[in-house]
Amino acid sequence: MGMVGGGPGSFIGAIHFNGAVLDGQIDLVCGAFSSDPEKSQDTGRLYYLPDDRVYGSYEEMIEKEKALPEGERMDFLCIATPNHVHFGPAKLALENGFHVVSDKPLTFTTEEAEELTSLVEKTGLIFALTHAYTGYPMVKEAREIIHQGALGKIRKIVSEYPQGWLSEPIERENQTQAGWRTDPSRSGKSGCMGDIGTHALNLAEYVTGLKVTELCADLSTMVEGRPLDDDGNVLVHYDNGARGIIYASQISAGEENGLRIRVYGEKGGIEWVQAEPNRLEVKWNDKPMEIRKPANSYLSVLSQYNSRMPPGHPEGLIEAFANIYRNVATCIQCRINGTKPPPEALDFPGVKDGLRGMKFIDKLIESGQSDQKWIKF
Amino acid sequence: MGMVGGGPGSFIGAIHFNGAVLDGQIDLVCGAFSSDPEKSQDTGRLYYLPDDRVYGSYEEMIEKEKALPEGERMDFLCIATPNHVHFGPAKLALENGFHVVSDKPLTFTTEEAEELTSLVEKTGLIFALTHAYTGYPMVKEAREIIHQGALGKIRKIVSEYPQGWLSEPIERENQTQAGWRTDPSRSGKSGCMGDIGTHALNLAEYVTGLKVTELCADLSTMVEGRPLDDDGNVLVHYDNGARGIIYASQISAGEENGLRIRVYGEKGGIEWVQAEPNRLEVKWNDKPMEIRKPANSYLSVLSQYNSRMPPGHPEGLIEAFANIYRNVATCIQCRINGTKPPPEALDFPGVKDGLRGMKFIDKLIESGQSDQKWIKF
Amino acid sequence: MGMVGGGPGSFIGAIHFNGAVLDGQIDLVCGAFSSDPEKSQDTGRLYYLPDDRVYGSYEEMIEKEKALPEGERMDFLCIATPNHVHFGPAKLALENGFHVVSDKPLTFTTEEAEELTSLVEKTGLIFALTHAYTGYPMVKEAREIIHQGALGKIRKIVSEYPQGWLSEPIERENQTQAGWRTDPSRSGKSGCMGDIGTHALNLAEYVTGLKVTELCADLSTMVEGRPLDDDGNVLVHYDNGARGIIYASQISAGEENGLRIRVYGEKGGIEWVQAEPNRLEVKWNDKPMEIRKPANSYLSVLSQYNSRMPPGHPEGLIEAFANIYRNVATCIQCRINGTKPPPEALDFPGVKDGLRGMKFIDKLIESGQSDQKWIKF
Amino acid sequence: MGMVGGGPGSFIGAIHFNGAVLDGQIDLVCGAFSSDPEKSQDTGRLYYLPDDRVYGSYEEMIEKEKALPEGERMDFLCIATPNHVHFGPAKLALENGFHVVSDKPLTFTTEEAEELTSLVEKTGLIFALTHAYTGYPMVKEAREIIHQGALGKIRKIVSEYPQGWLSEPIERENQTQAGWRTDPSRSGKSGCMGDIGTHALNLAEYVTGLKVTELCADLSTMVEGRPLDDDGNVLVHYDNGARGIIYASQISAGEENGLRIRVYGEKGGIEWVQAEPNRLEVKWNDKPMEIRKPANSYLSVLSQYNSRMPPGHPEGLIEAFANIYRNVATCIQCRINGTKPPPEALDFPGVKDGLRGMKFIDKLIESGQSDQKWIKF
Repeated sequence: MGMVGGGPGSFIGAIHFNGAVLDGQIDLVCGAFSSDPEKSQDTGRLYYLPDDRVYGSYEEMIEKEKALPEGERMDFLCIATPNHVHFGPAKLALENGFHVVSDKPLTFTTEEAEELTSLVEKTGLIFALTHAYTGYPMVKEAREIIHQGALGKIRKIVSEYPQGWLSEPIERENQTQAGWRTDPSRSGKSGCMGDIGTHALNLAEYVTGLKVTELCADLSTMVEGRPLDDDGNVLVHYDNGARGIIYASQISAGEENGLRIRVYGEKGGIEWVQAEPNRLEVKWNDKPMEIRKPANSYLSVLSQYNSRMPPGHPEGLIEAFANIYRNVATCIQCRINGTKPPPEALDFPGVKDGLRGMKFIDKLIESGQSDQKWIKF
Repeated sequence: MGMVGGGPGSFIGAIHFNGAVLDGQIDLVCGAFSSDPEKSQDTGRLYYLPDDRVYGSYEEMIEKEKALPEGERMDFLCIATPNHVHFGPAKLALENGFHVVSDKPLTFTTEEAEELTSLVEKTGLIFALTHAYTGYPMVKEAREIIHQGALGKIRKIVSEYPQGWLSEPIERENQTQAGWRTDPSRSGKSGCMGDIGTHALNLAEYVTGLKVTELCADLSTMVEGRPLDDDGNVLVHYDNGARGIIYASQISAGEENGLRIRVYGEKGGIEWVQAEPNRLEVKWNDKPMEIRKPANSYLSVLSQYNSRMPPGHPEGLIEAFANIYRNVATCIQCRINGTKPPPEALDFPGVKDGLRGMKFIDKLIESGQSDQKWIKF
Repeated sequence: MGMVGGGPGSFIGAIHFNGAVLDGQIDLVCGAFSSDPEKSQDTGRLYYLPDDRVYGSYEEMIEKEKALPEGERMDFLCIATPNHVHFGPAKLALENGFHVVSDKPLTFTTEEAEELTSLVEKTGLIFALTHAYTGYPMVKEAREIIHQGALGKIRKIVSEYPQGWLSEPIERENQTQAGWRTDPSRSGKSGCMGDIGTHALNLAEYVTGLKVTELCADLSTMVEGRPLDDDGNVLVHYDNGARGIIYASQISAGEENGLRIRVYGEKGGIEWVQAEPNRLEVKWNDKPMEIRKPANSYLSVLSQYNSRMPPGHPEGLIEAFANIYRNVATCIQCRINGTKPPPEALDFPGVKDGLRGMKFIDKLIESGQSDQKWIKF
Repeated sequence: MGMVGGGPGSFIGAIHFNGAVLDGQIDLVCGAFSSDPEKSQDTGRLYYLPDDRVYGSYEEMIEKEKALPEGERMDFLCIATPNHVHFGPAKLALENGFHVVSDKPLTFTTEEAEELTSLVEKTGLIFALTHAYTGYPMVKEAREIIHQGALGKIRKIVSEYPQGWLSEPIERENQTQAGWRTDPSRSGKSGCMGDIGTHALNLAEYVTGLKVTELCADLSTMVEGRPLDDDGNVLVHYDNGARGIIYASQISAGEENGLRIRVYGEKGGIEWVQAEPNRLEVKWNDKPMEIRKPANSYLSVLSQYNSRMPPGHPEGLIEAFANIYRNVATCIQCRINGTKPPPEALDFPGVKDGLRGMKFIDKLIESGQSDQKWIKF
């Protein structure tokens, strides 16, 4: 693969790299890590890339890689740039026949997201969006439990993502991550909700298979002077009649990455917490609560497919990323080989999840500014 | 004390009894346990009461007890009846000079609640409402941490109370508890929110010292045919600018009594969970999370006052009830002795908390039926 | 009941009282709370006892109570004194026809324990020893799971009780509890192992129904100058071939009451932790772990018998004590009525458990001083 | 690197690979994955290796790789074979100038271990042994807390490793992992204690910096007919006077990889559990318990050095392996560059840890068969 972004100060670039190479199916062969060519070369050296495969821009990279012989050029592009530089490289890559794995959000604007969605459909290329939390084996298990109907009809969903790291205005102290995330010109029209609220939505919809149909949002900016929301609480209705709450926060002081989902059906419920990803609580009214753990033979095929070690060996977020990459690599390999990938390998978030996330942000902003209770989604 | 209610099939009556007698300051001396005189006598016998102190109605009890010499008659009335029979005995007791400890909600209607509030003010008698969750030592500690400013200005509060026991229409199977709780003629205008949503409100306001000023509610009835709400999600604004969520549910299958509160300020946060009441998480952005546990010397005076054993000896809900009763008993004793109770003994929920709960229910119902986003409270 | 001990500075006296009165079957009617008659009267007043039922010695109490008419005199004696004053009152009470509930250990010496055991057998009176941890409903459930064979043959048992409160020589600072517990003339020949190691043994034997047959002990005194052990690690063999570890410590700094038991059979295992008594982990090799919680209908009859509230209402150590007292009261009541108590009511620790604890201490001391690996028990 | 072992059916080979490549410093360039040349080639293809770098034996690989030009040949050998094939490749690699990363145990016999230790000393080559649990950032933090004296003098250590997967004789059902682990000709003289008991020892000694000086072991074979121990309980004394317990089990049904360590000093204690590796409990007698989590600025330099993501992003066992590999790679790189590695990079288990593990096994077996209580170590 080739990478755009991921230069000095990026942490998400490193995670993409770690996840991509973990299973030995993917090599990083080129990169445009920074718009500053020196910095790009510095990063390239860290990855032991030859100088001539390190580029000063994604345009250059795509052009030059395309000119290389098949088998030598990159097979797909990994996008690990800030939000406002997702669309450009994605579009150009697709137009030049490269598959794409992009960090979320899909794009900077919904118009771009729609254009990209069309382009993916038109080209038929593989497009993965790293809503990586859905890559965890116990999230897969939750999905399978629900899809198989074990909980009965779903009635209530609480999906939340509290963080605390933006409790103080650290963006004014040159903190790189905080800087672009609170800057509308690089992050987009939403801060907290765009950054992590979309994860909470994606997780809820992935796990349940349901879609939010209307919402009522209360967005706040708790740190004075910050131009974007840093907290948001949302009431939601789902397409089967279920109701719920989605909330995200970056001013919940003391929380690290408190992504948590609870889903309740007529017969039982599930609870999963990202900070302890290797356990899934399954709750019943008339039976003891179960704690399911990865890689056990009692799990669904889909869940087992996404573990790489026997039970009792903790896997983390890099492995969740790696599950997306492994699936993408498998799909690309199958295309090259002309074979059909196993159904489990098709289970990764794509361009439509990304478009949905962009529209969710639009609706949240609209609702947050409206006196009307319910906004259709 | 004398008890009204608490006859066969009541579980709350027994908890009131357990909590009242635990510390040896209170004896049950009389009761009107059931409107059926035989059942009342049967229950009286379980408590080893003499027949002539067991009554067929609260009216009879109050009249006859009042006629007994001071020191022999009951000092206060405990009300453990269903919701629609809270007001009557409370009013009569106050009018006849008896202090009152009542189960929540305060009354059946807000008008009654207002009348009772006036009556308490007028008579100057002691009135305690058993929002017992605020009796736990770690809830007291949470309150003190916040009141002393350790978390800085409060910004976000999530107070939730999921239960699952009404996931199926068990009220149609003659389940006593489910029967009256889902019946508007005995429970009041709200089901779930009145029963347990008010606990979530009370806990949030008690712990933070803040007041909800406006709200936006989404109430549901998930079990078909049930005449009252069995789930509710509410966005709330507080009087200091903090925002939050209050939710309660009786159809969250697999949950027992999942009352949980999280409060975040500028500097840190706290989390407390009723199912494991003997631990309080205190979270910081720049320091390790702390787990505080009851009866330790590092706790606030208020928290220590509400433990009765050294560290490491779990206390439960009965002890939380007992803390209310012990405080009430201490206050009554001090009145008798003409002394001033210690400030810690004054810390129990009262008639104003009850009135607030009743108005909260009104506003929830109003908001639930409204297209307007925010309803003032 | 009448109480000996439990005067100022005693915490165990208060717990006995709380546990005894909680369920309304037992009243405290007299006491010899201290060998100092004034202190005894002071304590008596706290319990609202009439002066003439407060005594200056247990001898006086037993003599005078016996002289009272049946129905008025105490039904049984509760012993809440330091270890060296267990035997005297127990013996005298039994000899005068009173049932006994005693704190552990049974006596100061094994000879006394044997004498008491004979006396209980001879008199046929009820004798309960408050190894109260076995009163928790989830401990009962663990026992039932194992007795019903669900785990298969038991192979391994780890029973441990770490505390940290004696990490420093606080006995030299006039701390009452520490003072007598580290003083051989009041505590007996063992410190830590006698005080809490016996709980770990009792719990293991109660839950599994097995008996330790040989042991290998490593006892230590970690705080310099302390005359008794403050830490002990023991290898044990059980009568069915199972093996295990029993350990206790009072110098495990930072631990409160870390009593924990894990039992493994051929098919599965259980784990229970006193600090969170309302959950029992049941683990399987080929199925998800189960978390069982009190009062649920899926539990054994014995476990349900020992809860007093519906699921989700935490109970603590006082309730565990109360379960012993309720059972004793039920058995006494049945004797008075000439009826047969339900089998569940017979499930409380007795004089034989106490004798076994005393012999365990002997064997531990013997093993601790021996170069021989295994000592028969 | 080159790999020996790790062919079909090996799970540890894959973990070594994942850990080695994760951070982009190491490539797999050659392998002798199986003694069956076809299987070796099959595995090589999974790793996209050219056929001429896949060998039929480690002897062939070492010979041919040595003949390649520097920069092209492997820099070090990774050993992922069963226990009885650790020594051969390690010795040959060292003799031919290759650094080594080996799975544990170090060798099959103590004599081999001693020979290897001498060889490492003589050649000065880098040798790492993958006691990977010490690679977790929170284990590093525990070590630093203790080394900096925050707990005071260490008094008690409980290190345990229960598993349940060998509760039934699955080695008779052709389960590969179970097969060689219960076979003395491939596993060595100990089963459970050699396999995982050595991890418990290594963890205890690593975290505390103390050494076990004498021990008393009770080894069992619970599954009938199994030729090696499947459970072991050991009392241990440390060189500073501390005492403790080490135990391991493969018949603790329902446990996955329950490695847990608790260390208590005069002032406080720590507890770490492998199944939830991203939290470290630090307990105090007079302050609230702390929960420390990876990557936070309040952690020691050593701990922070071993995280690769910001707080709140769970890392697992592969990352712990990767920390060893990253350190080894850094050290090799520094040798090549003629620079000095940072002190944090030197912190990985080596040949002396391996020798110590082998001697521990010897002493356990000796003690297990002896009537003498204490065996010097």
